[in-house]
Amino acid sequence: MITQVLIGILSGAAILTAGILIGHYGISQSSSGAPPSWLKDVAKDVDESLIEKFLSEVDNIQIQENLRELTKVPHMATTAGDEQTVQFMLKRWQDPETGLDQAWREEYMVYLSFPDPKNPNKVTVVSPSDTVLHTAREKEKSYTPDQDDPEVVQPYAAYSPAGHAKGKLVYANQGKPSDYQLLNQTIDLRGTVAITRYGGAGRAAKAINAAPYGVLGVLVYTDPLDINDGLMSDIDETYPHSWYLPPSGVERGSFNTHYGDLLTPYLAAKEETYRIPAENITGIPPIPIQPIGFEDAYTLICELGGEAAPAAWQGAFNCTYNFGGPGFKSTSYFNNSDVKLDIFNHEEVKNSSNVMGVIRGSVEPDRYVIYGNHRDSWVHGAIDPSSGTSVMLELTRVLGSLVQQGKWRPRRSMIFGSWGAEEFGLIGSAEYTEQYFAKLSERTVAYVNVDIAVFANATLRASGMPSVQNILFAAAKQVDAPGLDSTSVYDNWVRYANRTSPALGIIPRVGYLSGAGSDYAAFVHYLGITSMDISYTYDRTKTNARIYPAYHTAYDTFDYASRFIDPGFVSHQAIARTAGNVLIRLADSLVLPLNCSDYAEILEDYLGTAMTLYEHQLRARNISMEPLKRAVASFRSAAAHLDRVIRTSDLANETPLKVRRINDQLMLLDRAFLDPLAFPNKHAYRHVIWASSDAGKPTFPGLADAFATAESSGQSRHWDKVHYHLSVLSQAIEGAAHTLVDVI
Amino acid sequence: MITQVLIGILSGAAILTAGILIGHYGISQSSSGAPPSWLKDVAKDVDESLIEKFLSEVDNIQIQENLRELTKVPHMATTAGDEQTVQFMLKRWQDPETGLDQAWREEYMVYLSFPDPKNPNKVTVVSPSDTVLHTAREKEKSYTPDQDDPEVVQPYAAYSPAGHAKGKLVYANQGKPSDYQLLNQTIDLRGTVAITRYGGAGRAAKAINAAPYGVLGVLVYTDPLDINDGLMSDIDETYPHSWYLPPSGVERGSFNTHYGDLLTPYLAAKEETYRIPAENITGIPPIPIQPIGFEDAYTLICELGGEAAPAAWQGAFNCTYNFGGPGFKSTSYFNNSDVKLDIFNHEEVKNSSNVMGVIRGSVEPDRYVIYGNHRDSWVHGAIDPSSGTSVMLELTRVLGSLVQQGKWRPRRSMIFGSWGAEEFGLIGSAEYTEQYFAKLSERTVAYVNVDIAVFANATLRASGMPSVQNILFAAAKQVDAPGLDSTSVYDNWVRYANRTSPALGIIPRVGYLSGAGSDYAAFVHYLGITSMDISYTYDRTKTNARIYPAYHTAYDTFDYASRFIDPGFVSHQAIARTAGNVLIRLADSLVLPLNCSDYAEILEDYLGTAMTLYEHQLRARNISMEPLKRAVASFRSAAAHLDRVIRTSDLANETPLKVRRINDQLMLLDRAFLDPLAFPNKHAYRHVIWASSDAGKPTFPGLADAFATAESSGQSRHWDKVHYHLSVLSQAIEGAAHTLVDVI
Repeated sequence: MITQVLIGILSGAAILTAGILIGHYGISQSSSGAPPSWLKDVAKDVDESLIEKFLSEVDNIQIQENLRELTKVPHMATTAGDEQTVQFMLKRWQDPETGLDQAWREEYMVYLSFPDPKNPNKVTVVSPSDTVLHTAREKEKSYTPDQDDPEVVQPYAAYSPAGHAKGKLVYANQGKPSDYQLLNQTIDLRGTVAITRYGGAGRAAKAINAAPYGVLGVLVYTDPLDINDGLMSDIDETYPHSWYLPPSGVERGSFNTHYGDLLTPYLAAKEETYRIPAENITGIPPIPIQPIGFEDAYTLICELGGEAAPAAWQGAFNCTYNFGGPGFKSTSYFNNSDVKLDIFNHEEVKNSSNVMGVIRGSVEPDRYVIYGNHRDSWVHGAIDPSSGTSVMLELTRVLGSLVQQGKWRPRRSMIFGSWGAEEFGLIGSAEYTEQYFAKLSERTVAYVNVDIAVFANATLRASGMPSVQNILFAAAKQVDAPGLDSTSVYDNWVRYANRTSPALGIIPRVGYLSGAGSDYAAFVHYLGITSMDISYTYDRTKTNARIYPAYHTAYDTFDYASRFIDPGFVSHQAIARTAGNVLIRLADSLVLPLNCSDYAEILEDYLGTAMTLYEHQLRARNISMEPLKRAVASFRSAAAHLDRVIRTSDLANETPLKVRRINDQLMLLDRAFLDPLAFPNKHAYRHVIWASSDAGKPTFPGLADAFATAESSGQSRHWDKVHYHLSVLSQAIEGAAHTLVDVI
Repeated sequence: MITQVLIGILSGAAILTAGILIGHYGISQSSSGAPPSWLKDVAKDVDESLIEKFLSEVDNIQIQENLRELTKVPHMATTAGDEQTVQFMLKRWQDPETGLDQAWREEYMVYLSFPDPKNPNKVTVVSPSDTVLHTAREKEKSYTPDQDDPEVVQPYAAYSPAGHAKGKLVYANQGKPSDYQLLNQTIDLRGTVAITRYGGAGRAAKAINAAPYGVLGVLVYTDPLDINDGLMSDIDETYPHSWYLPPSGVERGSFNTHYGDLLTPYLAAKEETYRIPAENITGIPPIPIQPIGFEDAYTLICELGGEAAPAAWQGAFNCTYNFGGPGFKSTSYFNNSDVKLDIFNHEEVKNSSNVMGVIRGSVEPDRYVIYGNHRDSWVHGAIDPSSGTSVMLELTRVLGSLVQQGKWRPRRSMIFGSWGAEEFGLIGSAEYTEQYFAKLSERTVAYVNVDIAVFANATLRASGMPSVQNILFAAAKQVDAPGLDSTSVYDNWVRYANRTSPALGIIPRVGYLSGAGSDYAAFVHYLGITSMDISYTYDRTKTNARIYPAYHTAYDTFDYASRFIDPGFVSHQAIARTAGNVLIRLADSLVLPLNCSDYAEILEDYLGTAMTLYEHQLRARNISMEPLKRAVASFRSAAAHLDRVIRTSDLANETPLKVRRINDQLMLLDRAFLDPLAFPNKHAYRHVIWASSDAGKPTFPGLADAFATAESSGQSRHWDKVHYHLSVLSQAIEGAAHTLVDVI
């Protein structure tokens, strides 16, 4: 009986268990339904092991081989060499094993300027009897086969008008307004030719500033003081013996103040797009200008007559830099001679391509993380831009492999842009933002720019909106500093460049993107997209070079890069790891890793400077800075509030629409600072915090410029403009604060 | 044994069943987790029974009582009467039983213009010996106590400058450029005073067009032909005997071309905001102008000498409308007399309030559906705007009660705006959009405007972006037409105003919001928010009145509204039901009920017109319309694609981020048509499809205007502008298409 009872109980228990199992696993929860399969995906955060995998797979040798391939021939925009790189990018991005989901080219018909290979530009010294006493080099001296490539373009100033200028030479330092002003105090500049050195003013400005004084033509060269730490001899001091610029090296460049295609402002340069008449272009040289090497500059400057120029104007040559009589010393072989420029540049509308590639996002394909780098160079462009292109290709190889193997797909979409015609004025990226303005404005989370990946191998350098500081730090902490044992890129960085944050203590200094130095410009200033620019750079205790010495010359080659800039390509690798880490975090994090309180800190810093510099004088004119103070305070408190919401919410378990809402607030933060009417005289500058400024003060750019103008003119209409801009600025900051506070 | 076996089987079965039940219900699905509670909420669609409930609760008597309360005293912007309505709105919206989640006021310091009660404006006929032969009425005749209210403002032209003008009278028809041009062919207009009738040109334009001819002052009146179907006598024909305008009735108005506060363009008019100097204001009368009743106009016009004006200039008076000698007939008592205007208007910066209220959204609080109506009137404003305010208050009462009782909360947030100072130039709504530009741009799904709710009780009238057509139809089909048995508002509407859609056949005609007639202007033209404007209106077979005759006069009272416009308030009720239905659908639908293919149809219609009107001449000038054709085709195919995605997706069961993505595409569609630089001469017009136009062609406004200018001047720079605008337009349409195609 006991046995029977036991059997009964046991069978009962077994049947019950079976029932429980059937009930639990065998019948789907029809009333409330089974949890949908997408539930885990939408709540997923960045996977640290994926980042580790990425970091370990980034390979320096791959980067080196990318660079070798990219620099086989010169690839100036729209040349055959450029087309070769287009094909190379497409091949790589369309590779079924390591490529992206999709890759294609986008073409624009853009306005470029070239010298005439059959009729090279000439700079000569001509005697009164028309004898040519000296002719400047037309091409750079050859040290390796690279310089002999027939596709090496003659050094020239893109957008310099063609024409002939002949006159007595004067030395105008850096060609700043103050330089010509000073020179004009002792010399009648009418009919002269000015020689200037690079630095201190934009390229085009050196000619634009000169023309009003009657200067007929301008030369520009790189002084060894500014680029070579004073060294000059190619016997043992300069390339190929070191990274320094050889005497015949010439920096090419775009002599153009604006960015984007010059004939189609605000419009994508398609075939049938309206083009303004070329004579309406502003911001380019009104008179011929030509760059030369310091070898030729030495010959000219050391022969100049007239008074000695001020100490600040002196360079590295072993002679006194005189103003010019105008013209040469009476004791010179060149006595009474003129300098003559014969410029044969021509403008042409040519077909330039961006190469685009995407990895489709899994959960939020309509959110874009964009990574870009230009593809075109002036000559071989090993550093500028192919160091960046090599890094981008390594990044996309590692990410593309993960995608093609089905191991990973980012939450958000990644877009890669290989921009065309950057060297002529950031044209490819600007046209892209014009063509896709609405879509990009609506959906872009951030833009990451890596142009020159490695200037030098000492330390990370990063610039960006303050909200990206945090993600840069996080990424830099996870990457080993090249050439150093057990030191992170972050720890190394903070030694080279730091500041004290009121909230965070001593941290690396992240720069600002207030200019238009690379392809981030259209993203920052025109679209208001949170952006950053990343590279490895100099130890400033070791060199004063303006930039790496081979910049924009025929010496920026694979040989130069691999021997002097980054032997072993370990700094390239560190940049690929850091930038890729940033990219993955932007694409995969559940909550966007953008920090609005860090933004508030910089606004407060700008405000403090503005109060110190302007409040006293503004109050005297009954212009109140209170609205600006209130706006910055609103922003701070809204940012603190949003941070608190993020910190205190369990976002992985709440509705995905809540995290999306917060992410939209973070994504659109910079958009709120745009005002298309704030800078009527600056093409495509709309971001009231980061626009370029002439005043050179570390504060709100429009306010600083308006104040400088009013202070110098004293006119009440200019003080009105200060008040007006204060209102524009305060409203924009208040508007940004509105987007951070509770959504209703 | 069989029994035992049976018992065994039965107990086994019972135990198994118990087990299954325990397993199914008693143990949570721990491995995959229980479905989260928000899952149902995010997938919820509009609830039709809620809409039925809403429709049944909208009460005509409540609307009537709202109107009675709102029209007790005149409530011109910033007066004590206006403040009374502010308090009334706040009280209603803060009511704990029927109010909204939150309500508050927002204040702006705005530039207004008023007559001087102590020194009323005067219009007189003065003999050569300075005897006053006739004085125009300074206030309207009293028929009810309403007209006797001391707060009834004297009829005046807001923003007319103060000043004195004296001269011989001429009749200038509607004051259009062509009218003055014709008049000037026979009469030297220098030193004259012109009398004009309302209609044909904007109010300010009648003076702006006159000034260049040397006209010193302008009168404006409403001709009985234009407003009263010719009737004139207050003995038995006009109010209080009918809805027609009494002889002394005068239309007040803002004589201002722009919208928004005139001193703070693009900036919210806060206390410390920068204000432009008043002398820099454009678009207001440069010479004094004053409106008068047709009683006085009759006295003046029928005495005019000179030639008879053309037939099209003749009105309803029983005399010939002559041009004026200039001045009166020699046979007139007024012979040789001048007409004199003494205008004492003054401008003042005053504090105007918007009253704002919100119902917080449950699932997507960061998506706004905005509903607005202005609150300020010229006098009692029973129709304009209090008919709309009464409807809004009834809407918010019904919705507020549902919220306060916990029966309903919309998916998206609802924002209600009771705008201030609309009559002076849509000021309150414009300042609101300037202050909250970023937030509203990012989050607003749609704006619904109901200003004058009921012009007359014949049929629905609706205007809006083409994408709202569908939702208007859906709502109108569910509402009974007032005064008709078993006919819907839709069925009644399609009889009065229809068109043939290529896709849909005969449907009601939805108008376009291309002007700035009410508070939708800033939402449409400045923010690019999908908007609509809804009202009940005339049977055009029964009247030719320009507008309801008491418009902007002291007769627009509760008595007038309840006796002649909508006895029983059933048309008001129909508007409340229709607009409320639209509002709930916008706020609660899972997929936003906006249709982009309907937008494509209208773009194709505009394109067809443009091709017919312009292609021949443009081709002759080598300007291709192909990019525009391609852009419209891209838009059509992108719209068809998005429609297909919506139709073929199971959005309630996919990730909520998918429906959000589609809704963002729909929400931001109109934003993509904005170009802040497209119309440099039109303040705050940025929408390239719906901007105002002078050319009067049913096609793209900027193209039509540029073409008209080029055709009339023949200058190549004007043809360049046509080409330029074609590029702007094509790029905007392509940009909009990009936002509709697959997101990556």
